[in-house]
Amino acid sequence: MSIQSFHPPVRTLMGPGPSDVNPRILEAMSRPTIGHLDPVFVDMMEQMKELLRYAFQTKNELTMPVSAPGSAGMETCFVNLIQPGDTVIVCQNGVFGGRMKENVERCGATAVMVVDDWGVAVDPNKVEAALQANPAASVLAFVHAETSTGAISDAQTLAALAHQHDCVVIADTVTSLAGSPLKVDEWELDAVYSGTQKCLSCTPGLSPVTFSQRALDIVTSRKHPVQSWFMDLNLVLGYWGGGGKRAYHHTAPINALYGLHEALVILQEEGIENSWARHQKNHDALRAGFEAMGLSFVVPEGERLPQLNAVSIPEGVDEAAVRTALLNEYNLEIGAGLGAMAGKIWRVGLMGFASNRTNVLFCLGALDAVLSGMKAPITAGVAVDAARAAYK
Amino acid sequence: MSIQSFHPPVRTLMGPGPSDVNPRILEAMSRPTIGHLDPVFVDMMEQMKELLRYAFQTKNELTMPVSAPGSAGMETCFVNLIQPGDTVIVCQNGVFGGRMKENVERCGATAVMVVDDWGVAVDPNKVEAALQANPAASVLAFVHAETSTGAISDAQTLAALAHQHDCVVIADTVTSLAGSPLKVDEWELDAVYSGTQKCLSCTPGLSPVTFSQRALDIVTSRKHPVQSWFMDLNLVLGYWGGGGKRAYHHTAPINALYGLHEALVILQEEGIENSWARHQKNHDALRAGFEAMGLSFVVPEGERLPQLNAVSIPEGVDEAAVRTALLNEYNLEIGAGLGAMAGKIWRVGLMGFASNRTNVLFCLGALDAVLSGMKAPITAGVAVDAARAAYK
Repeated sequence: MSIQSFHPPVRTLMGPGPSDVNPRILEAMSRPTIGHLDPVFVDMMEQMKELLRYAFQTKNELTMPVSAPGSAGMETCFVNLIQPGDTVIVCQNGVFGGRMKENVERCGATAVMVVDDWGVAVDPNKVEAALQANPAASVLAFVHAETSTGAISDAQTLAALAHQHDCVVIADTVTSLAGSPLKVDEWELDAVYSGTQKCLSCTPGLSPVTFSQRALDIVTSRKHPVQSWFMDLNLVLGYWGGGGKRAYHHTAPINALYGLHEALVILQEEGIENSWARHQKNHDALRAGFEAMGLSFVVPEGERLPQLNAVSIPEGVDEAAVRTALLNEYNLEIGAGLGAMAGKIWRVGLMGFASNRTNVLFCLGALDAVLSGMKAPITAGVAVDAARAAYK
Repeated sequence: MSIQSFHPPVRTLMGPGPSDVNPRILEAMSRPTIGHLDPVFVDMMEQMKELLRYAFQTKNELTMPVSAPGSAGMETCFVNLIQPGDTVIVCQNGVFGGRMKENVERCGATAVMVVDDWGVAVDPNKVEAALQANPAASVLAFVHAETSTGAISDAQTLAALAHQHDCVVIADTVTSLAGSPLKVDEWELDAVYSGTQKCLSCTPGLSPVTFSQRALDIVTSRKHPVQSWFMDLNLVLGYWGGGGKRAYHHTAPINALYGLHEALVILQEEGIENSWARHQKNHDALRAGFEAMGLSFVVPEGERLPQLNAVSIPEGVDEAAVRTALLNEYNLEIGAGLGAMAGKIWRVGLMGFASNRTNVLFCLGALDAVLSGMKAPITAGVAVDAARAAYK
């Protein structure tokens, strides 16, 4: 056996995440490792919590990154808030609602599903009906920004309904954080998890979470122990909690945290409202280009995520061959469909650092060239012009 | 709020981990991020599994890094192998046996504890008695290298006893991997987890695991679903398993995996037997220095980990003040005691890249200077000479 050092190609990442990483973040991750109980590191952790509060638009004391990817952030919310025998209303309009159901059931609880079509927002009327029909429900869980379809739901309205029925809210904001307006306190979201590799443009591997006091009270007064030792917030808080002595729980992923810290400093420099506006502006341009090519959006207008553009594959086009050509000839990654959408859509991300004019024009140009080369039955030549016009 | 980029100090890490990271690994982690389903990345994953098999000395097909720290690797082993109602024999001779008990109980199983004093190896006679007294037990769990005390146990003997009683073995090798002989196949260990931030000298955040066919058969034939979605190997294997199509499970921590790949390439270049021998040689020198200073080892000779040296604090010495002085005046981190050992010992790591002559002599010199400055009642001046003589 003789395996050499790994040198990845330089790609442009316009899939559903990871997105292009700002070089400042990569550089930050390569800074010298220090101990996870080092006083200097502990100071950095306090900054991290403050920066995350800004990103989530919250004052929640319990705001921190889980030391594992977004799906562990999801599980952290479920295992801490749900006990065996509970009833949980779960909204499903894509892949990740289904994953929430799995989490609920593995906690020994019952999931009542509110199902909407893939590609549309969660319907608040259906949610209200489910809350009324299930007075024993204690939690409402939904995905704010469905990465599998590109649909955004009205988190504020859903949270208000939940609270009217004495439920706490678990919200998946993996793809919305920093890309679309997300206001945890104003909208009264209780347990919120996200990821680092979408609109924060950090590398994958961490999951920022924030818990309201109402959610935290449930965690600290549980009768049944949290089934996961690693994710038990009663223990994790001994390390990430404010003030006093830090108790060892697990060894924090030091250098990954350097990267997230830098990503959040960059967000603070830009200003979160500016970040939201930038995502919208680049989406508008990409959309103009796609529509000029004759590509149609999966999600109805008004429910579209600017950072994740799901478009239908034109008749007669081999979608996998297009993605392979983009990757091999242009080092450009766009996403395929997941689950029910596999083979039917492309998912083009404009997330974080990758949400910029260069990427928009490059993607349209490359897609144009590949489709033209395949003699695809769509009109592509006008795409870049349409996008350029949209920037004016 | 205006928080600036974080620039850590340059420390020498000689605590219980993280250890000094080889600059090659830091550089590897800063390479461009690519997609987690990119064919180039998938090839790298195959190399990673092969490199990990070498590190674990195994041919196990299921050999991969869990996308979270060592404590999640521990939990991965327990939640996949244990079902509600099971009986598990857990050996405890330090902090991490206690954590195993927590894991067992959170799986709805019963932990039968085999307790040894902190600082000594697990006693095989007690284990045999517990196996005989508990014929219903299905798992024996123990810590190969106790990071909290620096004691190593005889994993081969313990595994043989377990198999005689139809138990599978879960072994914690967080601190032994690459630092002390560890032969998963020869010793017939069934489910083994480790960490990246000890003798692999990588940054913290990932947990390499390997499962024998016997262990994998249990995972795939369970009747009760694995309680963790994130850690369910039946799902994770869809992504990390060999051959065929990779199914999305979670987004892999791309750049952290670059780092681990490089760490394993470095191990392969050195040769694992050479790495074991290097750890022993530097331990011998540090030990000569410590003994010349009058510091005594916690663990009896023959049961000592070369990579983690636990020594008793001399009477009258303020141990926290010494560690603070080493950190502030020398940028040198050594470890405090954990749990029952808190305030009673120092833990000096010589792990991976940090296991070298420079660190040995620097540590002895710095400790000498700090203790002399405090007029500590021990003779330190001869330590460096003793260590230098040991290298001859």
